[in-house]
Amino acid sequence: MRTHYCADLRVADVDQIVTLFGWVDRRRDHGGVIFLDLRDRTGLVQIVSDPQRTPESYPQADKLRSEYVVKVIGKVRQRPVDSLNPKLPTGEIEIYAESIELLNPVRKQLPFQVSSAEHESVREELRLRYRYLDLRRERMAQNLQLRHQVVKAMRRYLEDQEQFLEVETPLLTRSTPEGARDYLVPSRVNPGEWFALPQSPQLFKQLLMVSGCDRYYQIARCFRDEDLRADRQPEFTQLDMEMSFLDQEEILGLNEGLVCHIFETVKGIKLPRPFPRLTYAEALDRYGTDKPDTRFGLELVDVSDILKDSGFKVFAQAVASGGIVKILPIPGGNEQISNVRIKPGGDLFQEATTAGAKGLAYIRVRENGEIDTIGAIKDNLSPEQKAELLKRTGAQAGHLLLFGAGDTNTVNKTLDRLRQVVGKEFGLIDPSRNDLLWVVDFPMFEWNPTEKRLEALHHPFTAPRPEDINDLKTAKAQAYDLVMNGFEIGGGSLRIYQAELQEQVFETIGLSPEEAHDKFGFLLEAFEYGTPPHGGIAYGLDRLVMLLAGEDSIRDAIAFPKTQQARCLLTGAPANVASQQLKELHVTSTHRPKPN
Amino acid sequence: MRTHYCADLRVADVDQIVTLFGWVDRRRDHGGVIFLDLRDRTGLVQIVSDPQRTPESYPQADKLRSEYVVKVIGKVRQRPVDSLNPKLPTGEIEIYAESIELLNPVRKQLPFQVSSAEHESVREELRLRYRYLDLRRERMAQNLQLRHQVVKAMRRYLEDQEQFLEVETPLLTRSTPEGARDYLVPSRVNPGEWFALPQSPQLFKQLLMVSGCDRYYQIARCFRDEDLRADRQPEFTQLDMEMSFLDQEEILGLNEGLVCHIFETVKGIKLPRPFPRLTYAEALDRYGTDKPDTRFGLELVDVSDILKDSGFKVFAQAVASGGIVKILPIPGGNEQISNVRIKPGGDLFQEATTAGAKGLAYIRVRENGEIDTIGAIKDNLSPEQKAELLKRTGAQAGHLLLFGAGDTNTVNKTLDRLRQVVGKEFGLIDPSRNDLLWVVDFPMFEWNPTEKRLEALHHPFTAPRPEDINDLKTAKAQAYDLVMNGFEIGGGSLRIYQAELQEQVFETIGLSPEEAHDKFGFLLEAFEYGTPPHGGIAYGLDRLVMLLAGEDSIRDAIAFPKTQQARCLLTGAPANVASQQLKELHVTSTHRPKPN
Repeated sequence: MRTHYCADLRVADVDQIVTLFGWVDRRRDHGGVIFLDLRDRTGLVQIVSDPQRTPESYPQADKLRSEYVVKVIGKVRQRPVDSLNPKLPTGEIEIYAESIELLNPVRKQLPFQVSSAEHESVREELRLRYRYLDLRRERMAQNLQLRHQVVKAMRRYLEDQEQFLEVETPLLTRSTPEGARDYLVPSRVNPGEWFALPQSPQLFKQLLMVSGCDRYYQIARCFRDEDLRADRQPEFTQLDMEMSFLDQEEILGLNEGLVCHIFETVKGIKLPRPFPRLTYAEALDRYGTDKPDTRFGLELVDVSDILKDSGFKVFAQAVASGGIVKILPIPGGNEQISNVRIKPGGDLFQEATTAGAKGLAYIRVRENGEIDTIGAIKDNLSPEQKAELLKRTGAQAGHLLLFGAGDTNTVNKTLDRLRQVVGKEFGLIDPSRNDLLWVVDFPMFEWNPTEKRLEALHHPFTAPRPEDINDLKTAKAQAYDLVMNGFEIGGGSLRIYQAELQEQVFETIGLSPEEAHDKFGFLLEAFEYGTPPHGGIAYGLDRLVMLLAGEDSIRDAIAFPKTQQARCLLTGAPANVASQQLKELHVTSTHRPKPN
Repeated sequence: MRTHYCADLRVADVDQIVTLFGWVDRRRDHGGVIFLDLRDRTGLVQIVSDPQRTPESYPQADKLRSEYVVKVIGKVRQRPVDSLNPKLPTGEIEIYAESIELLNPVRKQLPFQVSSAEHESVREELRLRYRYLDLRRERMAQNLQLRHQVVKAMRRYLEDQEQFLEVETPLLTRSTPEGARDYLVPSRVNPGEWFALPQSPQLFKQLLMVSGCDRYYQIARCFRDEDLRADRQPEFTQLDMEMSFLDQEEILGLNEGLVCHIFETVKGIKLPRPFPRLTYAEALDRYGTDKPDTRFGLELVDVSDILKDSGFKVFAQAVASGGIVKILPIPGGNEQISNVRIKPGGDLFQEATTAGAKGLAYIRVRENGEIDTIGAIKDNLSPEQKAELLKRTGAQAGHLLLFGAGDTNTVNKTLDRLRQVVGKEFGLIDPSRNDLLWVVDFPMFEWNPTEKRLEALHHPFTAPRPEDINDLKTAKAQAYDLVMNGFEIGGGSLRIYQAELQEQVFETIGLSPEEAHDKFGFLLEAFEYGTPPHGGIAYGLDRLVMLLAGEDSIRDAIAFPKTQQARCLLTGAPANVASQQLKELHVTSTHRPKPN
């Protein structure tokens, strides 16, 4: 039986006989002396074998190759001074192998090097295809352990500090599509009927509050059959919480305690409290997004009032039609950003048009308040307007001012993108910073121009502010998002707990009373039986782990992720199934493959 | 904000002003003084309000009814001596309500009483339909909290004592039906292809061992689309574990530590260690089952050798055709069990035939070694055979001996059922006992007479004993089940970790090399890249909680269970879905409802 994990050995263990299990990370032959780096999930330790000092183990050591699985028994020795390795926690010792047992060799060519000493960059398809080898690599092994530590910190805080109960909610449940598409599961014993995999445990956690559970949490698997996007997975995990009898302030306070505990436990970082707050309106105004990266400035400036009567039609019409004109002021932008990049064909122009903008106007601020700009602006800017623009944006010589003009959404989206690109390019982001903030006072609803109806900005169970209850359409919600470094890592709200108000909200989003009853009748009925005031929040675990690990993709925070095409390259799922299986389920595929 | 949970208040809190939230469990009006039992998830506390002493709260208190949700602010007072309630942890105090705020009333007639003071028996359909009210009731609220405690104890032991990593494995995965049917999920973005919901994380946890994860656990949701049985759910939860580099003894030892920790933490019970062990053969021999309830005796006795040449054809033929004759000896059975119950139409006869027996022979043992029995036995039993039967079964005057004769499986199944019925009826089972034992040395395979092939008794990834490797068909497995009070609560095995042996096992169960490669190619390939020896176990969480809660149904261990017809009575799942949803998924139902 194992006596130690590899990376746990230290000088204090010298002269002990230890039994280790692991993989050969590297094998080196220095003039007949074999050095093995033995690796287990904790890290590396050096094993030494040679014909003189360890004749029993040498023949076996000589045959070992990378990734062979071995059991090693040996004595811990201090390394000679000239072979200390300060980079390794075990770098002051090595093991003289008294015996080496080969437990399993490698029989095929490795698709890529596992040892981190190789610094091999491997394309993601190959990593996912051989995920079991990828997970042996230091980076992914550490990500898995970090994920475990994050979840453990969450559980311990909620259980030990805050009396939360962990409750499991069903995964085979009822389809209530709102927002994303459901994954469906045909029922064999109830032919013609379908289960759905939950997009979140929302209804069940609210019912748990009705049941007096008081404080619920779950590390919950959720499913969304979305169109393919870079940073999404068909199945994902959230820390799901719901609490009774707390108001918004109390919920935010409790959650700050939770997040601080995670950061301190996992990263040793003490976050300052309370977390800053921005209203939704302020976030959009200053950053163009409701999840701003506040690690750098480059705040947007609304200049609609200055330019609303501009002779430059683009500006005047934007304001006249209810839109907006905003500026992203970039200190030093004159020098670093050429006109080529701003004009059609340039990368910044491309960013702007991807966000929906039709063009990208600019002003370059020179010495003594002189400006360089496109003709249409220059010709239509009075000295007063110019002075006011420079004053309001705080522009100095060297500033580049980028304009967004049009409907408010598009302008904000455009300047948000540009702000992020410039922030990164100019090195304005301190990667060691962890900026957490609450965004609050969201509107209850937003207009869906495609479906021509209001839809819930969060979800239709969100409670309006009491003072807004008489005009639901324009009401603000008791909702809150937690934003970290430009990512939404959590979001929640107080919930409606009165049947009548819930029915009004359903009506506002265009659900008929019949549809509301058919889909959510059980919830409306539950509200009649003594439902406590309650609220909750959910954190995207995959994304939080990704951020804490310093990764760019949530796939690197998940043991067995799917590709952007929703496939598992390891197992080949999804796949064809036997027709007998479908027959038993009373279903058939309507897909007819195209003939070759 | 709440200052205390209801049931936490004690005499030490007297004179404190407290703020409580909860439900009105009961309201009594004693001559103008209102007594409320206020309930939250911790239990009850008594609230007092009357027009003299608490005029502010009295008008509100007067209007409250059962299950109204309220906020109470009041002063803790010692109860008068004549109204102490020793049954309640808070029975020495009460709260003088300074204010009562009604947060939400009950607007409909309650479908059943929630208060445990009502002792109302409610049929299960109603409980499941209004699960949110059922979960408020003391019994289910305690079961939910017990489940949480069990899971918490598991996690803490595995994380803190045994360095296990929690890893999440996919729920949208590949169909590999073996044993039960898979639930399938059509893929929208890959038309014609299907995901399956996992019957267990078996393949992924083995791949985690290949990835060097070393010790893995997960509280894992699993899915089996089985035909409807009393004690099964379409989705269920298991504690799933896998370990590298441990042999069977080490795995059993680690798991005994885990189970002892759960019992001690949750129930305050110290289980004796090591747990007893039975081989599979011995369990079947002595109890007729591989999951014996060892809390009582009534062991079976094999008398095949005594009766193999009996003139009673049923016995002789049973043995001649490779079967068996066994006796269930019942001390005191003569008096308590009438012939009517043993003969056709009787309840014991019915039990026997349900198990597959054709009849139920018996001997009644009288004073002085005299016996009473059916003619066919009496006429064919020599004095020597009789003496040997009585001696081997230890029969005394008053014993009833029930016979099973036929093929071994049917005889064992029959006498196992009868043994359980009699054990219960005779009060032989001490309900305070918790008998845990390992059953080991299972055969690798058993014959499936329907499919006319060998199939894996556990699953095809189970490793044979090294000494049996040359004759796989008859090999015993390195497998182990943990049995508690007649229920299998856990089962596991060492796994195969060599591709060649795995291929041989696939071949033995009739899987062609092509099928094996198609279904499990990724596992076979993984075995080539340095796979460690490994093994694991899985515990049925729902059943374990059921047993610890003293419940008879796993539905009482699950927050939102489905019925035996695989339906959720609360949400109505499964249900019809919009045809547009099916169209997008490229599937259609082949079910045509019968016309009325």
